[in-house]
Amino acid sequence: SRELFVLTYGALVAQLCKDYEKDEDVNICLDRMGYGIGIRLIDDFLARSAVKKCRSYSETTDMIAQVAFKMYLGVTASVSCTSAAGNEFSLILDKNPLVDFVEELPAERALLCYCNLLCGVIRGALEMVHLAAEVTFLQDRLKGDAVTEIGITFLRKAEDRKHKRN
Amino acid sequence: SRELFVLTYGALVAQLCKDYEKDEDVNICLDRMGYGIGIRLIDDFLARSAVKKCRSYSETTDMIAQVAFKMYLGVTASVSCTSAAGNEFSLILDKNPLVDFVEELPAERALLCYCNLLCGVIRGALEMVHLAAEVTFLQDRLKGDAVTEIGITFLRKAEDRKHKRN
Repeated sequence: SRELFVLTYGALVAQLCKDYEKDEDVNICLDRMGYGIGIRLIDDFLARSAVKKCRSYSETTDMIAQVAFKMYLGVTASVSCTSAAGNEFSLILDKNPLVDFVEELPAERALLCYCNLLCGVIRGALEMVHLAAEVTFLQDRLKGDAVTEIGITFLRKAEDRKHKRN
Repeated sequence: SRELFVLTYGALVAQLCKDYEKDEDVNICLDRMGYGIGIRLIDDFLARSAVKKCRSYSETTDMIAQVAFKMYLGVTASVSCTSAAGNEFSLILDKNPLVDFVEELPAERALLCYCNLLCGVIRGALEMVHLAAEVTFLQDRLKGDAVTEIGITFLRKAEDRKHKRN
């Protein structure tokens, strides 16, 4: 049952909203917490999914969308590649169980990425399999968008170096 | 999969430990959050468990230990009645999945009831079926006890009145 998890997650976000006035700070904190979870969760995922090594960004993204999301959230996401270079992908969620008990965001919390923990989890887990990535919410049904969309940009080695240099 | 829940719960407790210096304040906060979750979770539990109305404190406690714990934590607890009056019970957990990733409590957090959210959840859920109760940790493997034991004291009407009067 995921209800206890979903409600506990809501309590966590509510607490962070008490702690931090700015939505951006809550988002950063959720992402950082998620990162810490992702770097631990990857072992559990690899052990229980028994997946083979992925040989492309596309395979990796499908694995997250089909296997990992199913395992931890009980839903799957659809995937589309959004760059000609083949390193940017979108995970589209028609249904996001994490917001089951959320009616809508309060007006004063318009910039809150309620589910930002997920971005951090994905980022942390990918890092543990030696894939640097940026993970952000691109669309969010809680903000009135038609779907929930998570963007993953894999940082290729050259880009990665440039990124670090800047 | 419960790993994401268990790690998220850990992040919540860690955040509260940052927010509050005193363990007692963290415990109170976890209990209060749990209460808020319990009063919402009971609907989900009643709908999905399709249980009949319990006719005694003993039946109610068995329901929590056998059905609710299984549904939300994946384990069952054993129950013992601990008062001649028949209103005090212990739930004994040999295995507590919520602490799967916790090695031990830091020395400076000796009074922390890490899983205190559960007490609040039980208290809140019971209140929604018109049963007032006190729910507290009596033993905790994280603190070196042999088992984890949650005590439930149902407040009978007379006691309840006395309780309120004081």
